[in-house]
Amino acid sequence: MTSKRNLIQERKKKKEISLRISVRVGTGFSDLQEVEFSDLEEKLCTPEQKHPKPDASALVFGKYFTDHMLEVPWSLDKGWGKPIISPIHDLKIHPAAKVLHYAIELFEGMKAYRGEDGRLRFFRPDRNMARMLSTAKRSSLPSFDANEMIECMKRLIQVEREWIPHSTTSSLYMRPTFIATDPSLGVASPNQALLYVILCPVGPYFSSGFKPISLMADPQYVRSWPGGCGALKMGANYAPTIYIQKQSELLGHQQVLWLYGEDHQLTEVGTMNIFVFLKNKNGERELITPPLNGLILPGVTRLSLLELAHEWKEFKVVERCITMAEVVEAHEEHRLLEIFGAGTACVVCPVSCVSYQGKEYTIPSTEESLSQRFYKTMSDIFYGRVQHPWAVIVD
Amino acid sequence: MTSKRNLIQERKKKKEISLRISVRVGTGFSDLQEVEFSDLEEKLCTPEQKHPKPDASALVFGKYFTDHMLEVPWSLDKGWGKPIISPIHDLKIHPAAKVLHYAIELFEGMKAYRGEDGRLRFFRPDRNMARMLSTAKRSSLPSFDANEMIECMKRLIQVEREWIPHSTTSSLYMRPTFIATDPSLGVASPNQALLYVILCPVGPYFSSGFKPISLMADPQYVRSWPGGCGALKMGANYAPTIYIQKQSELLGHQQVLWLYGEDHQLTEVGTMNIFVFLKNKNGERELITPPLNGLILPGVTRLSLLELAHEWKEFKVVERCITMAEVVEAHEEHRLLEIFGAGTACVVCPVSCVSYQGKEYTIPSTEESLSQRFYKTMSDIFYGRVQHPWAVIVD
Repeated sequence: MTSKRNLIQERKKKKEISLRISVRVGTGFSDLQEVEFSDLEEKLCTPEQKHPKPDASALVFGKYFTDHMLEVPWSLDKGWGKPIISPIHDLKIHPAAKVLHYAIELFEGMKAYRGEDGRLRFFRPDRNMARMLSTAKRSSLPSFDANEMIECMKRLIQVEREWIPHSTTSSLYMRPTFIATDPSLGVASPNQALLYVILCPVGPYFSSGFKPISLMADPQYVRSWPGGCGALKMGANYAPTIYIQKQSELLGHQQVLWLYGEDHQLTEVGTMNIFVFLKNKNGERELITPPLNGLILPGVTRLSLLELAHEWKEFKVVERCITMAEVVEAHEEHRLLEIFGAGTACVVCPVSCVSYQGKEYTIPSTEESLSQRFYKTMSDIFYGRVQHPWAVIVD
Repeated sequence: MTSKRNLIQERKKKKEISLRISVRVGTGFSDLQEVEFSDLEEKLCTPEQKHPKPDASALVFGKYFTDHMLEVPWSLDKGWGKPIISPIHDLKIHPAAKVLHYAIELFEGMKAYRGEDGRLRFFRPDRNMARMLSTAKRSSLPSFDANEMIECMKRLIQVEREWIPHSTTSSLYMRPTFIATDPSLGVASPNQALLYVILCPVGPYFSSGFKPISLMADPQYVRSWPGGCGALKMGANYAPTIYIQKQSELLGHQQVLWLYGEDHQLTEVGTMNIFVFLKNKNGERELITPPLNGLILPGVTRLSLLELAHEWKEFKVVERCITMAEVVEAHEEHRLLEIFGAGTACVVCPVSCVSYQGKEYTIPSTEESLSQRFYKTMSDIFYGRVQHPWAVIVD
């Protein structure tokens, strides 16, 4: 418990300083309660209540949950309630709650790792919390102090430390979720909400090295559109994709390559961002990923890969629209080097084949691919083989 | 209970006949259980458990719920469970349930009425159940027998008959809701779901005659798009609209007029379908509503108004795209007669003003408007002043 107390005292000091500054510059303080890590309550499992931990080799994504969850309730008139860590339990939700009717809900996907040095690390939580706040604003859900939430989540990781597999191919997936709970029909802003975090130990996404996937690219299905919410991590972006994902499976593919517009721009793949690595017409190697133009999710893995590639300075790195015509042309001219998806769950996921307008395009694969280099570099950061500011020490 | 028993016996007979026919024509029968009205269980409130009924004059949309709800659970391996009517209660939902993360959820809005003859009527339930089934298919939720569900809902209305206000301006709003409940992360088809129905007594939408609304029409906000799900009653279509609705309120308007495309086609208004009544360039009166082209919800009120207007044969009735340019031109040439919304909650809702590209267009209103005539005709059907097949007798 020392670690928690120390953290609280440190944050209290910071709060006092920020309060003094705020008062001095005349910032108004609302009467509404903020999320405060120092208010965190803990009601931990008894040893008997704890669940057996599955074997690291048996982990399936999203099936096993750890013993505890973090909850922070909110109401329009009181603001944020006390954060609480307690045994994982069913939520009691009124059948008229807005989350069940109007999909006022959003989530994030994050990961914590047990390093080779035994220390626990949390990958770029500031980025996920910043995105969570933008999604909350567009979803009419309230704002919160991202740093206080990160401290609460760190504490949750500490409590569940034994759930983080002792394996440098596994990790602890964290799912912050934010739902509108007020019991009244009517399409309107919520008056009550609940922010909670659940955790899943997850195994290696590729149990035996990389397993490239095959994609269906069919322009009749559109994931997001200008003036919509495709750049936010709202629940509403996911339900409509499942039926299309099934269509791709019926055709023997693993994922959907989402296209947009009359020129069939590549936007996302499954629930990942997409990268195309090719030789351009000047013979230069170029890594291309679609720009943040409102149609795609601003992925934290996407950002990290772009930052790494810029740092390496070995090839051109550009964020721009890329169309299927350009991919097909590069393929025909043998200039296409790689296509891969990037996301929290798999980190990097190579593509072996794209089915488009009746043709199957086989995507090259090499022993020493860029996607494998990215995967290795990211893994070194996750598991503390190199020290990096993206991997925030938890414990 | 006689009424329930009679209904069950009648339906059992129908089932046997349909079974015999199916066997004869060789239709395969699945082992999975279907929704069956004859399986309906009832656990009714004790008199002490019943809630006091609010005064009809105090009814606010979606705030008061009746004493009971109907639930039908579903699972991939067993099919549909027994329908049950029991006291309204919070749902116990696992924090990883797909409804809370990926918005796998849908609903319907329907109404039951107490007629002037004292009989209870249910408006076109077959239409709502047909739409619910199409939305379920696109949402990867299972199918069910619409007629069995209608019988279960009729029984729920009978149980709650005293909640239907004794007033010919009020009604019982019914909210069938269908959610994915299986406790596992991963964007995939659900293995468990719950279909439930809750009821709200609702007062007159316009407490003192019609209250026309003012609209914000801003093409930067897009509700739905080709290749998307805007024609289905998924929860996912609603969350993104609330922030835009707030923007319209900040500008002093009541609702959003949703436009689509570079030519600014009118699509929907708030959560209603839209109708434009004008004199065309040939001097003919013409009622125009956008077509069912995948961008708008196929409203049951929309359909009913179209059918009534076709029956009247007094003016042209067309389903076609109509742009803001055409509305502005008709306004300037004094050919615009009326604009109104149509939906289950308000039936018909006249529009007084449209704000578009920096101008406010005042929409004409007359004492004897088409919208009022529609409202009166529909009310006569709802309250049994005329006998009509759309108003299905419940009791």
